[in-house]
Amino acid sequence: MPVRTFRWHSQQLDVLDQRRLPHRVAYIRCRTPRDVAAVIREMAVRGAPAIGCCAAYGMALALRRPSATIPLAALETAAELLKKARPTAVNLSWGVDRMMALALRHGSMPRLPLYRLLVNEARRIEAADVAINKSIGRHGAALLKKKSVVLTHCNTGALATAGYGTALGVIRSAHARKKIRKVFVDETRPYLQGARLTAWELDQERIPHELITDSMAAHFMKTEGVDAVFVGCDRVAANGDTANKIGTYGLAVLAKHHGVPFYVAMPVSTLDLAIRSGKEITIEDRSPLEVVTMGSVRIAPARTRARHPAFDVTPARLITAFVTEHGIVRPPFKANLKKLVG
Amino acid sequence: MPVRTFRWHSQQLDVLDQRRLPHRVAYIRCRTPRDVAAVIREMAVRGAPAIGCCAAYGMALALRRPSATIPLAALETAAELLKKARPTAVNLSWGVDRMMALALRHGSMPRLPLYRLLVNEARRIEAADVAINKSIGRHGAALLKKKSVVLTHCNTGALATAGYGTALGVIRSAHARKKIRKVFVDETRPYLQGARLTAWELDQERIPHELITDSMAAHFMKTEGVDAVFVGCDRVAANGDTANKIGTYGLAVLAKHHGVPFYVAMPVSTLDLAIRSGKEITIEDRSPLEVVTMGSVRIAPARTRARHPAFDVTPARLITAFVTEHGIVRPPFKANLKKLVG
Repeated sequence: MPVRTFRWHSQQLDVLDQRRLPHRVAYIRCRTPRDVAAVIREMAVRGAPAIGCCAAYGMALALRRPSATIPLAALETAAELLKKARPTAVNLSWGVDRMMALALRHGSMPRLPLYRLLVNEARRIEAADVAINKSIGRHGAALLKKKSVVLTHCNTGALATAGYGTALGVIRSAHARKKIRKVFVDETRPYLQGARLTAWELDQERIPHELITDSMAAHFMKTEGVDAVFVGCDRVAANGDTANKIGTYGLAVLAKHHGVPFYVAMPVSTLDLAIRSGKEITIEDRSPLEVVTMGSVRIAPARTRARHPAFDVTPARLITAFVTEHGIVRPPFKANLKKLVG
Repeated sequence: MPVRTFRWHSQQLDVLDQRRLPHRVAYIRCRTPRDVAAVIREMAVRGAPAIGCCAAYGMALALRRPSATIPLAALETAAELLKKARPTAVNLSWGVDRMMALALRHGSMPRLPLYRLLVNEARRIEAADVAINKSIGRHGAALLKKKSVVLTHCNTGALATAGYGTALGVIRSAHARKKIRKVFVDETRPYLQGARLTAWELDQERIPHELITDSMAAHFMKTEGVDAVFVGCDRVAANGDTANKIGTYGLAVLAKHHGVPFYVAMPVSTLDLAIRSGKEITIEDRSPLEVVTMGSVRIAPARTRARHPAFDVTPARLITAFVTEHGIVRPPFKANLKKLVG
């Protein structure tokens, strides 16, 4: 059964509540921009592309019902509400702004046709994201031989995107081509996106997988062999240095040591040529509470201080290649990444 | 306040219930061999040397009260009971056998003097373990400069031994000599010995520390710098290959990559010259349930299979030196480890 992070139907947006995974599959019905802002704010939905798409539908929902407010004013209110839901999410602003710009170009249009126009635009954003991911998947799968054992970190799947996923999209695509013998899934502390989300997606589609703690990756690379590591990325600098979920950098070092190819699945939109190298990427510190607690249980002494960098930076020299919707990008990255955008 | 894993007083053995750490410091009073077998079996006490010492006191307790049974028969019963508590724990058998052998050499002695003899022997075992650890601590601390940042994995402290600890003993000793700026503590999934036990010990003695997930070690080696890694060991082969808690091997690879010295604290009793290399060490698989649950909460899908190797093997070439009670052992390990025993 393919995993649906959200689905538009009957003039409503149903959003999968990821907080309840893997225990329960429950969708939250959104009929207003306020409903959509709430699922984003409360992190029922996460993953930059997924948030961007939901926000786009949220804008359309501002015009779902007739109202005394004029359409552009209703959209302005919705835009403000949605952007506040996760102030630092770039894709969220991007999705909202794109919808607003379209509406402004058709400012004199009555509510109902404008609503239909916006719904179609949100559908296009969704479809484009899925198409990009499927293309990444196709290119990535071509890197693998039959019966490959791959390892992945965090969740880069359908749940983080409009569908299919980036690094997990590669694994999906390779599985469809009968190239996957097994996926090692890093549990990905402290949030456990691997254990809770990636394992759930793989289980849904019956892709053979084994869950491991992050600390076991080296052991299995040595004792059982891993043919490739696939990870996603949050931001890629012009020289190929890559910011991604904490743990990615260590994994890249381990892959290098064991001669395992290390691939980064990257939609071209994630490449930021304005950033020259990883040195210019600031690592966001998140609440240490997420490290000292598991679910609601505290696991460390009351006075113990914990650290929680949300991301780390993997230097380009540890990356074998980037897998993009336009194909595989190999070193020299500075020259070859630039060509992608040009 | 120094951490006491167990203490003999008023003819009783009080054992710290480590399952309740770091939330509560509670001792379980043991008056009979059966009481001691229970705390070992239920893992209120863990760590090979700690178990060995408790078992020795457990043997003495067989003779605490007058009884119709003759002393040697009571000891035979106690020995059987204690050895069954954790059948694979080598130190447990060793502690029990040593007590039994002593009793057999004084087979005709009446109960009370024999009891006193056995209590004294258990005290000697306890004191010897602490002395070994303090010596390891002293040698290890000499490796560090002032204001060192060190990183450790799992729990190798007072809680795992009769007192002071091995790798954590080095950190204790270095802290007493004002050489520790900070200790990074790997949480050590899946059991969380780092978060629950090592952080608690460091907190008790106000040694500055920061708790990190295992996946953060590489990031902090790169961004903040680590002066040395200290770990313990479960078994060391003649060539220096070292079995230790899962995660140790990956950490050694990361240390090598960052030029960080990687030290293994090793009581000479852990060296097994009968094993030529790590290839001969079988890795025990533990219950995958410990990986898919956190406390009592399941974190992965019901069908997801997890892996749980309890240990991994670090090849000797990744180890900078062994810290033993007789001093520092550097390469070539095969020759230099042999000298330790000869």
